[in-house]
Amino acid sequence: MLKLCRQYLNWIQNSVFEGEVAEVKLKELKVRAKIIMDEETDSLIIFKSRNKSWLDKEVVGNERAKLDNFL
Amino acid sequence: MLKLCRQYLNWIQNSVFEGEVAEVKLKELKVRAKIIMDEETDSLIIFKSRNKSWLDKEVVGNERAKLDNFL
Repeated sequence: MLKLCRQYLNWIQNSVFEGEVAEVKLKELKVRAKIIMDEETDSLIIFKSRNKSWLDKEVVGNERAKLDNFL
Repeated sequence: MLKLCRQYLNWIQNSVFEGEVAEVKLKELKVRAKIIMDEETDSLIIFKSRNKSWLDKEVVGNERAKLDNFL
């Protein structure tokens, strides 16, 4: 799931990803996630905002996202 | 950290929480999180939206949030 999500989004923390993705690509991600997940026990929760300015992001502590390229 | 965050928000998945919280309460959460976290290695990432309608939520798979009350 990590590998799959990283094909579409940036990994920011543990099981959390963020990014800008086209609606059709998001649909593709959901289809592919359903194939590898156990729908009875696993979940993929998607928060979407149509406009970047509608969502503020703030990091307390170490901004690990910067390391993503090295992982 | 889990216990602390659950005092302010609903636990929805692993290290992910969501909820409506007053600005002053969020400030309090950040101060308390800093006390218990190692700021060199840990991080608390906050996504804020001022308006509920600006953020869509979608769940693929099992909506574990429903179980939160039992945990």
